[in-house]
Amino acid sequence: MVEDIEKTESKKAAKKEAKKAEKAAKKAEHKAANVKENASTLDEADISVGKYGNLPLIRSDPSAPKRSFTYIKELNKSLANKVIWVRETVSKSMVKFSSNISKESIVDIEAQVAEVPSGVAGCTQTDVELVVSQIWVVSSSVPQLPLQIDDASRPEKPGDEDSLNIRVNQDTRLDNRVLDLRTPTSQAIFRLEAGVCKLFRDCLTKKGFVEIHTPKIIPAASEGGANVFTVSYFKGSAYLAQSPQLYKQMAIAADFEKVFTIGAVFRAEDSNTHRHLTEFTGLDLEMAFQYHYHEVMLLIGNLFTEIFKGLRDEYSNEISIIGQQYPAEPFTFLDPPLVLKYPEARVMLKDAGVEIGEEDDLSTPVEKLLGRLVKAKYDTDFYILDKYPLAVRPFYTMPDPQNPQSSNSYDMFMRGEEILSGAQRIHDPKFLTERAKHHAIDIEKIASYIDAFKYGCPPHAGGGIGLERVVMLYLGLDNVRKTSMFPRDPKRVTP
Amino acid sequence: MVEDIEKTESKKAAKKEAKKAEKAAKKAEHKAANVKENASTLDEADISVGKYGNLPLIRSDPSAPKRSFTYIKELNKSLANKVIWVRETVSKSMVKFSSNISKESIVDIEAQVAEVPSGVAGCTQTDVELVVSQIWVVSSSVPQLPLQIDDASRPEKPGDEDSLNIRVNQDTRLDNRVLDLRTPTSQAIFRLEAGVCKLFRDCLTKKGFVEIHTPKIIPAASEGGANVFTVSYFKGSAYLAQSPQLYKQMAIAADFEKVFTIGAVFRAEDSNTHRHLTEFTGLDLEMAFQYHYHEVMLLIGNLFTEIFKGLRDEYSNEISIIGQQYPAEPFTFLDPPLVLKYPEARVMLKDAGVEIGEEDDLSTPVEKLLGRLVKAKYDTDFYILDKYPLAVRPFYTMPDPQNPQSSNSYDMFMRGEEILSGAQRIHDPKFLTERAKHHAIDIEKIASYIDAFKYGCPPHAGGGIGLERVVMLYLGLDNVRKTSMFPRDPKRVTP
Repeated sequence: MVEDIEKTESKKAAKKEAKKAEKAAKKAEHKAANVKENASTLDEADISVGKYGNLPLIRSDPSAPKRSFTYIKELNKSLANKVIWVRETVSKSMVKFSSNISKESIVDIEAQVAEVPSGVAGCTQTDVELVVSQIWVVSSSVPQLPLQIDDASRPEKPGDEDSLNIRVNQDTRLDNRVLDLRTPTSQAIFRLEAGVCKLFRDCLTKKGFVEIHTPKIIPAASEGGANVFTVSYFKGSAYLAQSPQLYKQMAIAADFEKVFTIGAVFRAEDSNTHRHLTEFTGLDLEMAFQYHYHEVMLLIGNLFTEIFKGLRDEYSNEISIIGQQYPAEPFTFLDPPLVLKYPEARVMLKDAGVEIGEEDDLSTPVEKLLGRLVKAKYDTDFYILDKYPLAVRPFYTMPDPQNPQSSNSYDMFMRGEEILSGAQRIHDPKFLTERAKHHAIDIEKIASYIDAFKYGCPPHAGGGIGLERVVMLYLGLDNVRKTSMFPRDPKRVTP
Repeated sequence: MVEDIEKTESKKAAKKEAKKAEKAAKKAEHKAANVKENASTLDEADISVGKYGNLPLIRSDPSAPKRSFTYIKELNKSLANKVIWVRETVSKSMVKFSSNISKESIVDIEAQVAEVPSGVAGCTQTDVELVVSQIWVVSSSVPQLPLQIDDASRPEKPGDEDSLNIRVNQDTRLDNRVLDLRTPTSQAIFRLEAGVCKLFRDCLTKKGFVEIHTPKIIPAASEGGANVFTVSYFKGSAYLAQSPQLYKQMAIAADFEKVFTIGAVFRAEDSNTHRHLTEFTGLDLEMAFQYHYHEVMLLIGNLFTEIFKGLRDEYSNEISIIGQQYPAEPFTFLDPPLVLKYPEARVMLKDAGVEIGEEDDLSTPVEKLLGRLVKAKYDTDFYILDKYPLAVRPFYTMPDPQNPQSSNSYDMFMRGEEILSGAQRIHDPKFLTERAKHHAIDIEKIASYIDAFKYGCPPHAGGGIGLERVVMLYLGLDNVRKTSMFPRDPKRVTP
């Protein structure tokens, strides 16, 4: 088990919250006692007997009632005066009996839909209300919640001093993820995330790509063994794949021509930042091309345009819900996307007072600055940066045929943060060996990688996308843990 | 690294093949020398200079030719007399120059399409042929192949004694997967496998399911710790998830209502059979229901019907290609699918002379027998077996409300082998604790699982499907390694 050194902090917060909840619970108890008293004085005259109570545990009994339920969101005036059933989480004030029902419990309600000409305040349904005739608890919650859904749903506006005190901190949210995921924002985030995967797949499938599944358990840590998790494998050991790249490339060498895969990717990096996870969802693709890797790079650029259009058009409701809690500038993009060359970026940075050497990589703050410069000049939150210095790319990257300092590689950015890294890969085993030696990599250890290209392989390029980062940056969120349903980092492997 | 104790055997086979290949190569060398001689005598008169040769390594040079390629499968008479470019693997006999090109190399060919009224034998294109005017090697293969694509593609018919000698064994295939995947059968298998995932997702998305991603790195081995891989996780350790079940259930408790996920699943089982893998692709779903788990069970049954229909209608070409190498009876199914109750199955087995106790599980051979009985009686290769004995199911399975020996659980079968296991899960934390204690499970170790249901949770059911098994059994193949692109078993973690 992994020790969470931040736990002490969060425990203190949790204790505070627990005390608050205790007080609230005592209040509720008092209230409930009153209700009981009232109820007992009415006992002889209880005309609602058999119309409320705790349902027995639903175990799929054949004698179970046959009811057809209506979703709250489906309510409207056309249902006025009709009797319907809904299954919904109740609020304390819903009906008298419900003062005994703890928040977040699941209840079934029979009710008549009533028009409310004056409008209902503070509810998702404003023009009708329910006149409850039956209420049954299906599954009750413990009375003390570690966090209130209302608090977890509160808008976070920068500089809003008051709201600071009632914010639910990240660890409390993640420790109680089942509750935190019930907020309208969480519901919208993960529906939109599913949308990104769907758009990615649908777009590539239309272009003739084949979906593949690559192994996560691999025999050797290919790039020197840094940042790789070790797995006990029967009497030996193995590793967790840091990327599906070798396998995507093998699929290309095996004549599949265009492939994609969506799956878990593992990085044993001890980075505790807003954008690093030790396990994330990779959207990967690889494609054979005819003569120039730009055939692939531009296809990927176009893929992003399709995804952004799809999100804008099909997920506007989700985007608006999330924006109410976490306000952000709408995401902007160009069609076709902007392609900048590395030397051009260096000039833009120099003009802004930051000098980068010809063979230097961009640091994270410099990437962010470049994102702001690009946004100011071209009004786009997405762009492609092409032709990285050869020195800062992995050994399997194809060097530029004309400029020995440059390479056939690219990164793609959203709101100034990298979300894809890709390149033409070396498909010739001799040249690959030569480049690996240049990087002082033990050839023995990567023999099976090199061997994959021995039997003929078309030139190819590809890239890998971090799903959680794409969703975080598209929505302008501040932490990748908001877009990973059950995030993993060096300090967290629970729940 | 994992030792492959079967390697000695396959090494012998490989050596034999290598010797054969050596002979062939010497022959080719001799031939090539002749060609060179011929070429030198023709040197002054070589009218083809600049029309053949080795292309320089394609590194995305801006001066690269601009050509538009035609796929071999797109060739037809309408192209007759037109000059086109194709990129294709060549056969030894294609043109004179190609006798120097090793098999499986990638070449670009300029050619004129010519009608062949008499038909071309032994090729995929029978009514046109190419009159080659230019040929360029893009990427050359080493001359000695560890297996011949022709051998790897040879039909396997039961009882066919002759074909036994030229079969390529499974380990040779997997050791050289890049070549083995080039056979028409492999190409078709993995295209069909991609189809299963697509049909699964499209069908569930239409029904309102949300796709989620669940962590593979988990903090505790929930069911007692058997068959779980351990991962070194920074200064501690963690485990690889045997199923996404806990996380699917948490998503249900978190109000997502209907979820599915496709991802890697790990089993540290030391089983070396035709149907066990240590890593496979799980197609998982979980769904809240109103009153009866049959709402979910029948939805899953219907999902399979949709998948089978989709494969039959959209992948008939792939099915036919695979059937040529591995003949099998076409897969049969009923719409709606057959649902058998466990007691009915016991009666069918008893009538066939096999007695199974009321609380006994079915062994693999008995499952297969039952499959044959069902097929004979109902003519279906797919069916649902409902209401398993409680004693043979995991602790979280909901017991039957009327019969304490029975449970609300089901398996689904294809050609007599289990491909899905599912059930209503206990959604009440107290009852779940009671059942775990009954199974002598350490409550402390599963506390976070039980806690997921503390804050109210709708009744729900679901199931997990093994992708590779579904494809294997749909096609009537004999080994799950044929349907896993890079299979992992206790003896294999490569390539």
